[in-house]
Amino acid sequence: MPDSSNPFSDPQVLRAAIRAGEFEGPTSGLGGDALQANLVILGGTDAADFLRFCQANPRPCPLLAVGEPGDPSLPTLGRDIDLRHDLPRYRLWRDGALVDEPTDIAAYWRDDMVSFAIGCSFSFEDALTRAGIPVRHQQNDRNVPMYRTKLPTRPAGRFGGPLVVSMRPMLAADAIEAVRICERFPLAHGAPVHLGDPAQIGIGDIMAPDYGDAPEFREGEIPVFWACGVTPQAAIDAARPELAITHAPGHMLVTDIPSGRAEAMLTGVNNNKT
Amino acid sequence: MPDSSNPFSDPQVLRAAIRAGEFEGPTSGLGGDALQANLVILGGTDAADFLRFCQANPRPCPLLAVGEPGDPSLPTLGRDIDLRHDLPRYRLWRDGALVDEPTDIAAYWRDDMVSFAIGCSFSFEDALTRAGIPVRHQQNDRNVPMYRTKLPTRPAGRFGGPLVVSMRPMLAADAIEAVRICERFPLAHGAPVHLGDPAQIGIGDIMAPDYGDAPEFREGEIPVFWACGVTPQAAIDAARPELAITHAPGHMLVTDIPSGRAEAMLTGVNNNKT
Repeated sequence: MPDSSNPFSDPQVLRAAIRAGEFEGPTSGLGGDALQANLVILGGTDAADFLRFCQANPRPCPLLAVGEPGDPSLPTLGRDIDLRHDLPRYRLWRDGALVDEPTDIAAYWRDDMVSFAIGCSFSFEDALTRAGIPVRHQQNDRNVPMYRTKLPTRPAGRFGGPLVVSMRPMLAADAIEAVRICERFPLAHGAPVHLGDPAQIGIGDIMAPDYGDAPEFREGEIPVFWACGVTPQAAIDAARPELAITHAPGHMLVTDIPSGRAEAMLTGVNNNKT
Repeated sequence: MPDSSNPFSDPQVLRAAIRAGEFEGPTSGLGGDALQANLVILGGTDAADFLRFCQANPRPCPLLAVGEPGDPSLPTLGRDIDLRHDLPRYRLWRDGALVDEPTDIAAYWRDDMVSFAIGCSFSFEDALTRAGIPVRHQQNDRNVPMYRTKLPTRPAGRFGGPLVVSMRPMLAADAIEAVRICERFPLAHGAPVHLGDPAQIGIGDIMAPDYGDAPEFREGEIPVFWACGVTPQAAIDAARPELAITHAPGHMLVTDIPSGRAEAMLTGVNNNKT
């Protein structure tokens, strides 16, 4: 909800400032409690393949919205969104290599471009915190540890590769409660995919994550693993599309959707209220 | 649902045969898919204390129905139930000691007797099986292993003591799915209370259960623990009421409630259809 002391707590004010070039920073903590999303933009057959990849792998790639080809708006996620300008920073990939980090992508937009807004873990982490379950990397002000697993995704076209998971250490009773809570957030990766022995899913050293920061375990805690939004990134890395545009890490699409109502509004239960 | 080849698949036919003294065996596999229940009968202030104990400890003691004092029927659970005759075998306890295993308790009935029907794990075990999750003790045709824990119940009057848990070995991914499934069966003990390290809840040797048969663990499986219906039995053992009547193990109250609809019918969602 907008906070009068910070105009950027209003997602529409924030996006307007970004579009005007007045804000280029990370979006963490901004936009009030509005849902934030990962962004992927692909053209032509890559877009068609990637859409099938997301549909086949909804745990790591929960689709919040898919744009019409050539249309940079996402009307179900927010009023007047223009994806060519409304993220503070993007990443531009050519043949799988990072070539630029622009703050506007109008120069690269084509009429076959399709935008994918993909859910992230913020919603369920908020719900865990509200339930009194400590989210360790937030407590420690670090990035969540993430790991490539030996679990395969279901491939589609050139997109495929391993499932990437995020990990949060917690007590067993909290892990059970976390399953009950996260089950309600399928658009934020849903329930965990594994808990306990990391070796069972191909993780050799739990203290050496492939992405993010090393974890801290406290007395009696077990590792709990969720499908992670880095999975689509890994699939794009592997597919090496001629051109791909994504958000820059931490520089997310800020929507108008209150995160506490995202599941109802985006799964059709309440979709006339968006 | 009634099976014409076995008249005891109809719960009303089964109860009539039991009442007439024509059947005295265990009820496992009988009554079609009708919900079966644990039975506890207590008098006077013991009944009042035990009701508060169940209300304070719904995971181990989910109340399906409570009788009116002196009334041996339970109209929400089945037509014309008479608890003085309708179970194939009972246990009679005086001052905490087992003194008899009668097939009829009319001789002991008093006008201050209150009956408690308590849910058991059958419903959720059926749901696990339907979801393709192996229930090991059923596969092995053994009793579920049960353990006294160091977790306390919330005491009420003289009733209290440790939480008793049942344990089912399974893979971590199945344990996560089991939480999601069992969450929907609060009248059958609900979601697990613990998983992983047995020592964290005071279990010294997982292979030496306090009740039931020793478990078998297969490659990669972890122990998953549920609150158990032996908990009220342990509370009664500890309270030593002057008189208590329970079902004999395996000789349950067979209700008219289809087990797949029990949660809806007994929690008031659908309570006009009973």
